[in-house]
Amino acid sequence: METFKIPEKMKAMTLTAYDKLAMAEVPVPKPGPGEVLCRIKSVAICGSDPKMIHGGYSFANWPPYYPFIMGHEWSGQVVALGDGVKDFVPGDRVAGEAHVGCGKCDNCKKGHYTVCLNYGKDGKDGGLDMGHRHYGFYWQGANAEYNVYKTSSLHKIPDNVSYDVASMCDCAGVAFHGVELAGVTPGGTSVVIGPGAIGLSAMMECKALGSSQVIMIGRGSKLEKARELGADVCIDFEKEDPVKRVLELTGGIGADEVMECSGAMDSPMKACKMVRKTGSVAIIATYHNDEVLIPANTVNFNEIHITGSKANPNVSEQVLKFFSSGAIDGEKLITHRFPLEDYAKAVELFENKKGGSLKVVINP
Amino acid sequence: METFKIPEKMKAMTLTAYDKLAMAEVPVPKPGPGEVLCRIKSVAICGSDPKMIHGGYSFANWPPYYPFIMGHEWSGQVVALGDGVKDFVPGDRVAGEAHVGCGKCDNCKKGHYTVCLNYGKDGKDGGLDMGHRHYGFYWQGANAEYNVYKTSSLHKIPDNVSYDVASMCDCAGVAFHGVELAGVTPGGTSVVIGPGAIGLSAMMECKALGSSQVIMIGRGSKLEKARELGADVCIDFEKEDPVKRVLELTGGIGADEVMECSGAMDSPMKACKMVRKTGSVAIIATYHNDEVLIPANTVNFNEIHITGSKANPNVSEQVLKFFSSGAIDGEKLITHRFPLEDYAKAVELFENKKGGSLKVVINP
Amino acid sequence: METFKIPEKMKAMTLTAYDKLAMAEVPVPKPGPGEVLCRIKSVAICGSDPKMIHGGYSFANWPPYYPFIMGHEWSGQVVALGDGVKDFVPGDRVAGEAHVGCGKCDNCKKGHYTVCLNYGKDGKDGGLDMGHRHYGFYWQGANAEYNVYKTSSLHKIPDNVSYDVASMCDCAGVAFHGVELAGVTPGGTSVVIGPGAIGLSAMMECKALGSSQVIMIGRGSKLEKARELGADVCIDFEKEDPVKRVLELTGGIGADEVMECSGAMDSPMKACKMVRKTGSVAIIATYHNDEVLIPANTVNFNEIHITGSKANPNVSEQVLKFFSSGAIDGEKLITHRFPLEDYAKAVELFENKKGGSLKVVINP
Amino acid sequence: METFKIPEKMKAMTLTAYDKLAMAEVPVPKPGPGEVLCRIKSVAICGSDPKMIHGGYSFANWPPYYPFIMGHEWSGQVVALGDGVKDFVPGDRVAGEAHVGCGKCDNCKKGHYTVCLNYGKDGKDGGLDMGHRHYGFYWQGANAEYNVYKTSSLHKIPDNVSYDVASMCDCAGVAFHGVELAGVTPGGTSVVIGPGAIGLSAMMECKALGSSQVIMIGRGSKLEKARELGADVCIDFEKEDPVKRVLELTGGIGADEVMECSGAMDSPMKACKMVRKTGSVAIIATYHNDEVLIPANTVNFNEIHITGSKANPNVSEQVLKFFSSGAIDGEKLITHRFPLEDYAKAVELFENKKGGSLKVVINP
Repeated sequence: METFKIPEKMKAMTLTAYDKLAMAEVPVPKPGPGEVLCRIKSVAICGSDPKMIHGGYSFANWPPYYPFIMGHEWSGQVVALGDGVKDFVPGDRVAGEAHVGCGKCDNCKKGHYTVCLNYGKDGKDGGLDMGHRHYGFYWQGANAEYNVYKTSSLHKIPDNVSYDVASMCDCAGVAFHGVELAGVTPGGTSVVIGPGAIGLSAMMECKALGSSQVIMIGRGSKLEKARELGADVCIDFEKEDPVKRVLELTGGIGADEVMECSGAMDSPMKACKMVRKTGSVAIIATYHNDEVLIPANTVNFNEIHITGSKANPNVSEQVLKFFSSGAIDGEKLITHRFPLEDYAKAVELFENKKGGSLKVVINP
Repeated sequence: METFKIPEKMKAMTLTAYDKLAMAEVPVPKPGPGEVLCRIKSVAICGSDPKMIHGGYSFANWPPYYPFIMGHEWSGQVVALGDGVKDFVPGDRVAGEAHVGCGKCDNCKKGHYTVCLNYGKDGKDGGLDMGHRHYGFYWQGANAEYNVYKTSSLHKIPDNVSYDVASMCDCAGVAFHGVELAGVTPGGTSVVIGPGAIGLSAMMECKALGSSQVIMIGRGSKLEKARELGADVCIDFEKEDPVKRVLELTGGIGADEVMECSGAMDSPMKACKMVRKTGSVAIIATYHNDEVLIPANTVNFNEIHITGSKANPNVSEQVLKFFSSGAIDGEKLITHRFPLEDYAKAVELFENKKGGSLKVVINP
Repeated sequence: METFKIPEKMKAMTLTAYDKLAMAEVPVPKPGPGEVLCRIKSVAICGSDPKMIHGGYSFANWPPYYPFIMGHEWSGQVVALGDGVKDFVPGDRVAGEAHVGCGKCDNCKKGHYTVCLNYGKDGKDGGLDMGHRHYGFYWQGANAEYNVYKTSSLHKIPDNVSYDVASMCDCAGVAFHGVELAGVTPGGTSVVIGPGAIGLSAMMECKALGSSQVIMIGRGSKLEKARELGADVCIDFEKEDPVKRVLELTGGIGADEVMECSGAMDSPMKACKMVRKTGSVAIIATYHNDEVLIPANTVNFNEIHITGSKANPNVSEQVLKFFSSGAIDGEKLITHRFPLEDYAKAVELFENKKGGSLKVVINP
Repeated sequence: METFKIPEKMKAMTLTAYDKLAMAEVPVPKPGPGEVLCRIKSVAICGSDPKMIHGGYSFANWPPYYPFIMGHEWSGQVVALGDGVKDFVPGDRVAGEAHVGCGKCDNCKKGHYTVCLNYGKDGKDGGLDMGHRHYGFYWQGANAEYNVYKTSSLHKIPDNVSYDVASMCDCAGVAFHGVELAGVTPGGTSVVIGPGAIGLSAMMECKALGSSQVIMIGRGSKLEKARELGADVCIDFEKEDPVKRVLELTGGIGADEVMECSGAMDSPMKACKMVRKTGSVAIIATYHNDEVLIPANTVNFNEIHITGSKANPNVSEQVLKFFSSGAIDGEKLITHRFPLEDYAKAVELFENKKGGSLKVVINP
């Protein structure tokens, strides 16, 4: 068993107020029972990160306190074990999930640990800590040299997958969970709305699961990326009506399933209008305004299934295998890399889609 | 084999323009291959009937022509067979479904015949008749002494079920399909919004399928009927906040499933807010305005499943067994009976909920 | 919060060798992190108990050591908490499940914790304890005054359910899991083979979930009990051919689903022959010889689904609600009660079906 | 619309007694309502064909009469329409399914038309013809220049798929239905037992649906073909224990799903022993002896799902798309072609696996 020297202090990028980021030197945390300490190697920036920095998740109480260490798409190396840990050894290369369930509520026991009934009960302010963790959202995250994790949030990385690619396990997993909930019709037509990193992952996953025609709806350079990564048809919604075009491409019947990854307020409406009778729509995105319109009579008449998809439960192993086999071409999703010190710059570039940025990875 | 004397002409209640009903004497139709002629015994008035009479379904092209014979919730007796009919004999007591699939499209072959891909292709105006029928909507219905039906739309009535009760097979079946699509959690909490005949049927079906706590949301005399028919809890939405109350009744977790049978524009929103994480909402109703709001982030965060439910495929046998066993107390749903001549009066009473009317049955 | 005086020593019924039972005074165990100490109130004897006593589970390494405290269908009261326990308080009345998952393997994370991939890894003989527990099988059980349990194996008992009835939560849960896996067709025909406590529970559960005709196959006094508890049809397999009879009762079509709870070597064969095309057979029983015949061509031609059903994951809350509502009439399943000292006598009576014994409960 | 000259007489290969084949000149059949006449272009020989010739299906009453025209895996061209046919025109290139449902029974209405409850009711011997067809088994088949078919059994062939490849639509569809019933775990391990044409199709389908490791179990030249067509691992069961090897290849956990396509009497037993806890086994093959052993306790303990898979309902469109995309490499499955006159020779070569024969196609 390898041994690692663990320093007392570490560098961490902290959020100290909305729109205030600061590098800090903080104590290296210690793993409790069932936890391990990891040396963080790569953290991918997620679309939710700039939103949280700007205060866009105040309704969700994210971040819960200051200074807060964000970062939830990460990979690293196990360097120390807490009591009772038997499924990992120091030296293991691992990718993390953002959620760990409480393990005791009805949803966790049934496998739905990203919708744990004890979500958010973190023991702060006199409440009970019921054991759920949402790393980087209401629990300390990966924007630092080290962090501790419950082992049930970790997955070993295949040898041929780099830390940088593995840090997108959570991102591609969010896509994959939605894809699984909507279902992919082998030989059918799948639509993905929104060619960000989640949408592009969803697109590659639909192809890997046997869809015959994967259609991406978007615009600009990200739509070009979709074409490069293998989308069968790309629809620029600024140039043509995507609903009309999808119906044309499917002989008037509509797509078998639609993965809504854009977060645009009118996308759920369009998704329901381009999907076939008995088709499925996965709501993988979130919206800046909670109240979104759907065509309720169409949903009824056409027996459409709309399913919310929360994070990435139970799919990390599959995503890592898809990275390993190349079914998801992870390297092509990464456009920029920065050291932890440059996190603010990295976020700014990512958020404003500068330099053709798609997935931006931090190496603490 | 019984034989029946079939007259040349019959009485029929026809719609001759929006809001214009007229009794007429018309030829008794002849059954084609695979069809039978039925003597109509009972026709239940559905919420869609007054709406169609007033022109509220012009967007759906209902009725497709004038004079049109409406009526789709019906029971009767087989009195003559078309060519090749081997599954029925004259004398059989039968209840009808409103839909018959084309039998050849992808959806029909998979069993989803109420969302037939050839819906509405009726051979009129130079188009092809692809074989789907929607009796009483775009194909001749039951508001007459006789009508012809494809045998695949018919089900034999158990001996202990009356024609009047059996005429509600379609109505209770619409409820049942939604209940099946949402799923009933044995030992769980089910909510039904809207105590009309469909909602009351859904309520009794939830109980029959093992729900431990069935909550009805509504108001007035129909809510009283829900209580009488066995709802565990009745919430008057004019007197208390139904979302808050359902959360209280479930320890803050929410209902396992919600059957939206009200058609009120704000019900889908409320349904999503009162259902638990991973819960289901069935959209069984239709809405006077197609564009309806849902809480999209809640749908995503809580992984809620919303499913459109179209009519009553594949459940008639089950509904008839529930009528027979008393699991659905059909007699208690019927409040008034009228002869065909009084159809306009019956509709008026039904539509305006006069005299505590719930289900109004016509006996042609 | 109530406090309880915990003694140092307790009485326990131990297995010291095959067919050797001995009362012993042993230390009261101490709850570790995430565990609670329970005062055992009731333990129901399961069909597996005499089999284990006689050495019939040597292939499974049950018991794993001597002296061993068996007993896995139990209820009791929480009397002390281990570190970090926040979901229970002393005084809580609880019913237990036999299995707790490791919480980290692929199956546990997906909710299938009774088929945990770390099953049996108990830390003995130099191996790793991976955290799964099978109380009363390879981990200390309930045949004693006290035992410790992980809280995720516990469920609060509704006020109107007695400890004795609640001790059958595991038994009725084993039935319920099988019933859920096979599925109950509302308005359909369900067959249960084997009117022991599991089969009788399955029968009542099928009725509670909407089956219109529940058929029990068995013989003798237990078959009489089935009739008393509400079976629609009872078939004595010594007097008539059950396959032929089920086909007659279903118009030649066969039952919608069959719950095989008998463990008779020829029951799976018969089950496949009496179930309809597309029907389901749940294998809830185990067999004294692992190699059992099925009619493979019939399985293929009729597209039959056979599903193994292991223990009672995720159904305890539902079973307790059914006990509370009376949907499962627990009191009628209990025929005898004994103090712990008389365990050997109780097992002997239970095993040999003396005195009309069905469910025999021990009160330590 | 193209018109075709239809002769009065045609050549047909007939079975006149067990093991007696004879070319005959017979009338060209006429399409009834809802039927079309097809000029047969290609008929693929199925493993069931020699078995039927030798009398191996006497238990199933196949063939039902003499002389009988067999042949059920076929493609051809529509040349004449019966009354009411609107979904095809003369000239259409089509591939056929062996089964057409009655369209009226409970199973057909739910989409399970290969397990039609009116199977075999063909109107012979004074019984009723209820409308189900099993072409080439109990209804006239494709070993002739022409045959009539109900249109719901037909699918249009994509332009880039040849008649010869399209004739395997039924064969690859049988595999696909089993694959869908068992389910393919994306990123998982799938095992196929039996590298015949069905097994090889299943193998390619598992890969197309996202399996990361597809293991073929067989021997000889067919196992070599599996390697050539992309099996990730090939296990020669004469050289090593396939159960042991599959467990090794999966870290002791077992395969996610097993497609049993071999028909060997010990394959179901092995399949259950090499599949993981909660895994699935599809019984796609049939057996020369109906009574087959399974490890019932393993099925119970490991919660294994065994599913019979009957023919190819609802998958032809998907299979044709997979032929078109190359996901199933149809050309590589075809090893020999013969004219109708050489049918006996073709069957002999196919049955005895001479000349590396795999799929042998007849061109009438």
